[in-house]
Amino acid sequence: MINEIYKNMLQGKSIIRELSEYAAIRGKEIGYDNVFDFSLGNPSVPCPRNYTDSMMGMLKEEDPMALHGYSPSLGIESVRRAVADSLNRRFAMDYEVKHIFMASGAAGALAHAFRCVTRPGDEILTFAPFFPEYTPYVNLSGARLKVVPADTKKFQINFGALEEMMNEKVMAVLVNTPNNPSGAVYSTETIERLAEFLRGKQTEYGHDIFLISDEPYREIVFEGADAPYVSKFYDNSISCYSYSKSLSLPGERIGYVAVNPRCRDAEILAVMCGQISRGIGHNCPASSVQMAVARVLDETSDLSVYETNMNVLYDALVRLGFEVVRPGGTFYIFPKALEEDAGVFCMKAKKYDLILVPSDNFGVPGYFRMAYCIDTKKVRRSLPVLEKFVKEEYGL
Amino acid sequence: MINEIYKNMLQGKSIIRELSEYAAIRGKEIGYDNVFDFSLGNPSVPCPRNYTDSMMGMLKEEDPMALHGYSPSLGIESVRRAVADSLNRRFAMDYEVKHIFMASGAAGALAHAFRCVTRPGDEILTFAPFFPEYTPYVNLSGARLKVVPADTKKFQINFGALEEMMNEKVMAVLVNTPNNPSGAVYSTETIERLAEFLRGKQTEYGHDIFLISDEPYREIVFEGADAPYVSKFYDNSISCYSYSKSLSLPGERIGYVAVNPRCRDAEILAVMCGQISRGIGHNCPASSVQMAVARVLDETSDLSVYETNMNVLYDALVRLGFEVVRPGGTFYIFPKALEEDAGVFCMKAKKYDLILVPSDNFGVPGYFRMAYCIDTKKVRRSLPVLEKFVKEEYGL
Repeated sequence: MINEIYKNMLQGKSIIRELSEYAAIRGKEIGYDNVFDFSLGNPSVPCPRNYTDSMMGMLKEEDPMALHGYSPSLGIESVRRAVADSLNRRFAMDYEVKHIFMASGAAGALAHAFRCVTRPGDEILTFAPFFPEYTPYVNLSGARLKVVPADTKKFQINFGALEEMMNEKVMAVLVNTPNNPSGAVYSTETIERLAEFLRGKQTEYGHDIFLISDEPYREIVFEGADAPYVSKFYDNSISCYSYSKSLSLPGERIGYVAVNPRCRDAEILAVMCGQISRGIGHNCPASSVQMAVARVLDETSDLSVYETNMNVLYDALVRLGFEVVRPGGTFYIFPKALEEDAGVFCMKAKKYDLILVPSDNFGVPGYFRMAYCIDTKKVRRSLPVLEKFVKEEYGL
Repeated sequence: MINEIYKNMLQGKSIIRELSEYAAIRGKEIGYDNVFDFSLGNPSVPCPRNYTDSMMGMLKEEDPMALHGYSPSLGIESVRRAVADSLNRRFAMDYEVKHIFMASGAAGALAHAFRCVTRPGDEILTFAPFFPEYTPYVNLSGARLKVVPADTKKFQINFGALEEMMNEKVMAVLVNTPNNPSGAVYSTETIERLAEFLRGKQTEYGHDIFLISDEPYREIVFEGADAPYVSKFYDNSISCYSYSKSLSLPGERIGYVAVNPRCRDAEILAVMCGQISRGIGHNCPASSVQMAVARVLDETSDLSVYETNMNVLYDALVRLGFEVVRPGGTFYIFPKALEEDAGVFCMKAKKYDLILVPSDNFGVPGYFRMAYCIDTKKVRRSLPVLEKFVKEEYGL
């Protein structure tokens, strides 16, 4: 019998996908160059040349049975070691092979982390604004996602709201910094305060509370941003990483779970991930992709375009009178809409072929997200259109 | 809090993996050439040259952003179309794009199929001997796996036992043909009888019963075997396929779910798979792998070695007095052990550096599995050792 849970999910369409589909259709009418599509968070720079060269080299030289052979269920050992070494080098951590589980991107990593440290019915807290896919990710794992209202001043953490929502059923707290959609990076002060708060609650409740850190944008951090490595500040922590953005390989589905060596049961969490995989049909990233990524681990794509775009866009938005927090990273910006209903605001922008995403799905009303992972020239070309839109619709 | 379900699973070690680890260690002592390792079902022939060439060509010529870009959640449309066309050509089916969901190998495909057509607490029946991973695959989906005792005469289906175990809670029946571990291929007669039986039960119970067909060995079929395409015989059917064996790409994790166009809700099952993915963190196979496989869809590796090995091994086993069903496909053979306890039998064989897998985990006591996806010369070299073992231990 058809499972009604999944059948009913077919009703709910993603607003981001709808907008990006609209942009594609509109692009066919008037030329995609004339559609200012800020809807999708898709990398706009190619992967490093070394990735391509590594893959070609292996295809030429390696035994195809080794290159395409089964990966152990936790990932290829040499790749896990390379990941641990790289993290240790960069963040002065002490990961060992046993703490690393190779996952098919951040979505795969999070699916394992949630199941490791929660049981059905447990709560996971996250902070608005948040990536809307967290809701199905968490809820279909059996846990329940609860969203702490935003600190709209700086898009750090609203600790008052956190305190109110914290309760004994919370077994994990999920953070995403640098943040999609706000572009904010949690400061050392924010992370320290969160860690202290959680340690207190662990003592008070007499059980562990895990901090799950979703870090696909970790490498996209702008000048001057204070971007601490979350796991340094809290023992019971799990980092979930993806190479989608840093290496521009979103379709190759590769990332990892890194279990804090100082967390409870640090010895077994990665092995537990291997068991979880059997239930959810997860398989490691493609073997050849694991091996190629391991060869370019400390590289990134040329990510500078995102900072250039952010500066262009931020300055223009401020000039036009928008209330906006300057992003510390990612390729998103999250200004306040010029009227209460962000949906109406974005609908009006659509008439100018400006494709903006209203904030409601991100857990904050009245804002909009712009994904500026597009060509800088196009960002510049969008500015007069943005100005025209604001002038005509809001008389600014 | 650590999830005890997965923690407790750490106790149970796979006997196959233990034996293969033993073989590797023993290989270091006496040279792996001298260990007759029949433990693992790992392809022993390389992928087709065209796969490598296609991948190299794309790496050279394609835009890296397209090659490594996000795949839609159901798979790349052109790849899904190519899969549908290939199945239609080969099996006179009428699949359309909307019936195909690209999955990360058969494990990924099965995880989706189980969740599509069962709800927690429902039963899925399968037939001994069976791939032991089915137990965690099914049970962790929330459904319950029940195993119908084997037809040990021919390793077709024991219909008497099926009739006894069938009940209203059964929402799906899982078949694996060609079969791991027996090597048997279900005949047209078997499939027709099963289909008729299930149609009768659907009417009797007033609900659908889905037939889930796990087909990673579909391309490894030997001369004279009657190997029908399961979905031709039963409308409510879902094929789960993997390219691991046919293209020797087990580590690249690519396969698909093919929803029978005539099944209930055929229009939405693949889209439901996309929703299921959000919960289990499944992501499509790597984009580049999808595209490369689409270019070699009607090819296979040179699979002839498996039939050669089967013939060598089957003749020797018969000559030595084993009771054994001649495999119609796969790279496994499943003879009866020479004493009641297959574990003891395999333990004795180990002394001769013959690594055989006892049958208990496959749901049949008293047999053993040999995976002959190894070099033919090594299979031949194993025969005098097998003879020595049998003579010395059992006086045959």
